[in-house]
Order: sequence, then structure tokens, then C-alpha cells
Amino acid sequence: MEATYRALREHGYADLTMRAIAEEYGKTTAAIHYHYDTKDDLLVEFLAYLLDKFLDHVRDIETDDPERRLGDLLDGLLIDREDDYDLVCALLEMRAQAPYHDAIREQLVRNDEYIRDVLRAVIADGVERGAFRDDVDPDAAASALITIVKGARTRFVVLADSSVLHVARDVAGAYVADVLEA
Amino acid sequence: MEATYRALREHGYADLTMRAIAEEYGKTTAAIHYHYDTKDDLLVEFLAYLLDKFLDHVRDIETDDPERRLGDLLDGLLIDREDDYDLVCALLEMRAQAPYHDAIREQLVRNDEYIRDVLRAVIADGVERGAFRDDVDPDAAASALITIVKGARTRFVVLADSSVLHVARDVAGAYVADVLEA
Repeated sequence: MEATYRALREHGYADLTMRAIAEEYGKTTAAIHYHYDTKDDLLVEFLAYLLDKFLDHVRDIETDDPERRLGDLLDGLLIDREDDYDLVCALLEMRAQAPYHDAIREQLVRNDEYIRDVLRAVIADGVERGAFRDDVDPDAAASALITIVKGARTRFVVLADSSVLHVARDVAGAYVADVLEA
Repeated sequence: MEATYRALREHGYADLTMRAIAEEYGKTTAAIHYHYDTKDDLLVEFLAYLLDKFLDHVRDIETDDPERRLGDLLDGLLIDREDDYDLVCALLEMRAQAPYHDAIREQLVRNDEYIRDVLRAVIADGVERGAFRDDVDPDAAASALITIVKGARTRFVVLADSSVLHVARDVAGAYVADVLEA
């Protein structure tokens, strides 16, 4: 998966070939094809691997304070991406190709649902503990934050300027402070 | 431009050819090439045409009440796109290809800056008239709303579900009500 990561960062999604991945991996293309029929099969696996890494990050968050946990998650989804421009670009290419590639779309939807579940759980916990207002709908609030994250990454690709990630972090922070917090 | 619109909706950006545009236009590809050297030249023109249509829409908004103008703009940028799935997909493809196509990137940035200027002007007007809080930074608030719009459209492409546009409209509404309004 590390070879796929490097190849994807270098070539983007559209120009990525099994050969490029094999070169990064130091194996033949036949060795890659032994495990994955198509480039999309391999990329579905790669998206699942990115999700696992994110879930590891979630488990490593040390605080159980809902506001701080939510802040940590938003940092991970936004600020921590600023040195990963090429990967964010490749992921946006995959999103843009989702309507034409079913397997990619299904895995992207799965990743997004997991991430939304994580946000929703933290928000629901905050409502239960009284950190967030009791009229907050955790489902809607999680979708709101995901929308801000996706918008920030799309703008990051087009503008090639990581300040949009910080702007979005501030927007998400204002949303949490002014809409969610008790 | 209407022929480009139809061809883009049908084929998407990656698979769009000058031939497909010529077929929609009822002319030869030579006739298209007479005006545009490359597909990207034509699409830059098409993006400028979309911007003009948006600015026409802005001029047609009848109210001068800042909150209602802002609401109308957000409706135009979000809800009015729900029947235009294929075009939203083609536009996201162009955004995803921006890092590799300079002319497309420049026009996308120009469009985004115009739209942000329009939002900023309405917000600044609202601050001046006392409809919005006087500690609101119109520049930051416009970027916030653009981030929500971009996120909604990216999610719309991946999920193929227009309810995400309505969710985003609610988020933008909550942002206006809880962060901007006096």
C-alpha cells in the first residue's frame, strides 16, 4: 500500500498505471496483477487502507473530552493534510471519477460513512454529557462538518494554497462554538 | 456554449472530445477548431460563460435586503444545482484536473474569486446596515460559505443524492443565523 501511495502521489489517479505501482514496489506488474485484477481493485484496497489509518488515529486520541476530541478529529481531517497536497489531489480525482467507477464510488461512500459515524459518536457523547446543546442533531451536525471538510479539500486542490484548510478549520470551529456548544 | 454544455453533460470532462461538441453544435470539428485550438480553450470559455450566467442571476435578485439577498445567492449556488447532476460532475472533474491544466485552473480560480466577491459584498453591506454583527469579517465569512458550497457539490457527485445540497443549505443558514446575524 505504501508503493500505491507513492505512485498515486507522483502520477495522480488518471495517469496511474499498474506499471508505475510495480516500479514503486520493486516488483513486476505480474506480481501486482496476481493480487489485483485492475487498477480500481487496487485503489479500493488503498482507500480502505487510508480509512484504517484514520481509525488508528481516532483510537490514539488521548482525551475523552467531547470538545477536545472533536477538535482533534477536525485537525486530523483538515490541518494534517496540508503537507499531502499530491494525495489530496489524487483523492479528488477519484471522487470526480466516482460516477463512472462503481467500485471506487462504493469504497468512497464507505469511507465517508465511517468518518461521519466517528464524528456523530463524538457529538452524541457531547450532547449526553451536556458539553453540546441538547437540541443538537448529531447526524446533521456530523454532515455539516463533513461538508466543510470536503469543501476545504476541493478548494485546496484548485487553489494549491493550504491556507484554505486553516480557514475551514476556523469555520468548523465557529460552527462547533456557535451552533453546538451549550 | 449551449452545445458545449450538452456535450459536457453527456460525456463528462475526461471523455469529452471536440468531435462530440461539434456533433452537438451541428458543425464540423474544423469549425470548432477555427475558434478554439484545444478542448481546454473551449472549456475556459465555457467556464466564463457559466460565470456570466451566475452574475446575470445575481443582477436579477430583486430584494436589496442583505439577509434575503444572501439567502437567494445560497439557494442559487446549492439548491438550484440539484437537477444538474451531470454538469456538477463535469465541473468537479475539471477541479480535480486543475493541478495538471493551467488554463482551466486559472479560470476556475477567477470564477471562485468572482463568486466570493459577490458574497463578500452582500455580507459587507449587511454589516454596514446592522443586519450582521459588526465584528464579522466579510472576507472570512464569504470563504466560509464558499467552502460549504464546494463541499456540498463534491458530496453530491460522490453520493449522487441531492439531499446533501439541502443539508448544506441548512448548514449555511445556521452559519448565517448563528455567526453572522446581529
